[in-house]
Amino acid sequence: MPTNRQFLLAQIPTDKLAPEHFRLIDGPMPMAGEGEVLVRTRYISLDAANRAWMLGRTYRAALNAGEVMAGGALAEVVESRDPGFKPGDLVSGDTGWQDYAALPARHLTKLGQAEPISHLLGVYGIVGLTAYFGLLECGQPKAGDTVVVSAAAGGVGSIVGQIAKIKGCRTIGIAGGEAKCALLTTKLGFDAAVDHKAGNLVRALRAAAPDGIDVYFDNVGGQVLEACLFNMKDHGRIACCGAASQYDGPGAAYAPRGVPGLIVTKRLVLRGFVVMDFEAENERALTDLRSWVESRKLKVYEDIIDGFENLPRALIGLLAGENIGKRMVRVV
Amino acid sequence: MPTNRQFLLAQIPTDKLAPEHFRLIDGPMPMAGEGEVLVRTRYISLDAANRAWMLGRTYRAALNAGEVMAGGALAEVVESRDPGFKPGDLVSGDTGWQDYAALPARHLTKLGQAEPISHLLGVYGIVGLTAYFGLLECGQPKAGDTVVVSAAAGGVGSIVGQIAKIKGCRTIGIAGGEAKCALLTTKLGFDAAVDHKAGNLVRALRAAAPDGIDVYFDNVGGQVLEACLFNMKDHGRIACCGAASQYDGPGAAYAPRGVPGLIVTKRLVLRGFVVMDFEAENERALTDLRSWVESRKLKVYEDIIDGFENLPRALIGLLAGENIGKRMVRVV
Repeated sequence: MPTNRQFLLAQIPTDKLAPEHFRLIDGPMPMAGEGEVLVRTRYISLDAANRAWMLGRTYRAALNAGEVMAGGALAEVVESRDPGFKPGDLVSGDTGWQDYAALPARHLTKLGQAEPISHLLGVYGIVGLTAYFGLLECGQPKAGDTVVVSAAAGGVGSIVGQIAKIKGCRTIGIAGGEAKCALLTTKLGFDAAVDHKAGNLVRALRAAAPDGIDVYFDNVGGQVLEACLFNMKDHGRIACCGAASQYDGPGAAYAPRGVPGLIVTKRLVLRGFVVMDFEAENERALTDLRSWVESRKLKVYEDIIDGFENLPRALIGLLAGENIGKRMVRVV
Repeated sequence: MPTNRQFLLAQIPTDKLAPEHFRLIDGPMPMAGEGEVLVRTRYISLDAANRAWMLGRTYRAALNAGEVMAGGALAEVVESRDPGFKPGDLVSGDTGWQDYAALPARHLTKLGQAEPISHLLGVYGIVGLTAYFGLLECGQPKAGDTVVVSAAAGGVGSIVGQIAKIKGCRTIGIAGGEAKCALLTTKLGFDAAVDHKAGNLVRALRAAAPDGIDVYFDNVGGQVLEACLFNMKDHGRIACCGAASQYDGPGAAYAPRGVPGLIVTKRLVLRGFVVMDFEAENERALTDLRSWVESRKLKVYEDIIDGFENLPRALIGLLAGENIGKRMVRVV
């Protein structure tokens, strides 16, 4: 009989996330009820949003101590009590950090084929769709625009920058450290990279985008958003995807202070989005993403860590900016 | 020979604006050059934006010490060297704080008639148009929506709330003090008023708008914006008109900190605007505003102070929240 390893969120962090906030147990093997599907997790996705879920209600309920840690995964159907799924199907869903999960069929998305299958959790999954819709729908870039993306070497950011290039934009990536910045310009086709660890970010952005920023894809919030606000062109657009710089610390800081002054005087539009809002358009997006990947216009970086037991450190490291490309943990 | 009284901005304030930042002088009488128009100011508009212009470049150049204080006015043509204007015409323009100004004809807007003529600087001027376009274009309210406006007893706010009612919305005003709040609900038709000086604003807003806010018209930024962000419904819209709470003090605070978290999770749109962006639609807006005022659906409050010499204290008092309705100084 297989075991069902589970990572529980042992306690809600009040400061930085650390290994002791998780507890590994041998949990019960779940059973699929009527209309449910038993799946085995293959790849578990690590996302900054995982940490945000610990702060309170977001677009989903807050996580609670003692529960299996939540997380999206690429999984394989083991047993189905729903006519829409059969053993061997690849699906995505919020399985949580465990080997097996029994989920209502309606909470699972049946996936097509991809080689490697990890792409189904990355460029052909929430990551790719987030980059695609956030940039194109919220950012509304036109050819010739200057597009800036933060966390540019990360899963979403690395795709945002490349899509912006495909659309004829001048593309600037913000990332932490020289190695990531070098990757952006030498491998991913960014026109410029700005190291947010290297000093005066407002000035560095002005040097990289002397005419200002038309579209900023914001993954991080905080001081990087502030620096971009100062460099936005009038009538610029900011796609608000996340505020990763604000999640992993003592008490989220929410106060807007003077920001609206810049929003007004530059007539900016800041638009928050969650990828599920654009679900009806997924097919079109996936067709584009596949054609770009297959024609090598879009390079896919994945940062795959082997071993279920490494989930906590994979997430902690992601929050510290360790990864290049989409980070996931391969379970089997 | 008439004199030309002028208030100079004697120095840029580093903290709160005070009388000593201005200096009254008898300036030279300006002469209209070719293509210019000599006007006499009748009413000078006081706006929180006057103070923002002292902070740096906004949608106009920053003010400098030693210059005539800038400000919009309703003025009368004395002499014209442009075929489009003749003596006696009423115009609006940035005359600055002085009795007479010679301005290029293209910087003046010829005004129609109104009784009283002060309405041309208020409800039929930038104030009314700002309320109209900011609410209807940026806020996109639908009948039944809950609309919140801050500085609700002020010039723009008092019109925003009434237009929202005309459009069938539930309207909540935020104002400072019991007297203003009472005015909102008893005279201006607001459904509820919240006193931002009375304590926990997040909670008070939740009580006034238990299902959340669809549209927030933001005149003030800062903590009031923060409280509204927490109470926004998903997919709510925020019309960013100004950040008056941030202008009059030591050093503007621009950092956004965690705000994008709320923009993302609620999928909000924050849109900054300046009334000139909608100039092409002014005629339609003015037709609506006139019909609402004439049918008494829209009540106009003006706060008119007599005497040129009172300009500094009129602005200082406005920044302290003294006025109800549109504040202006009557010069002649």
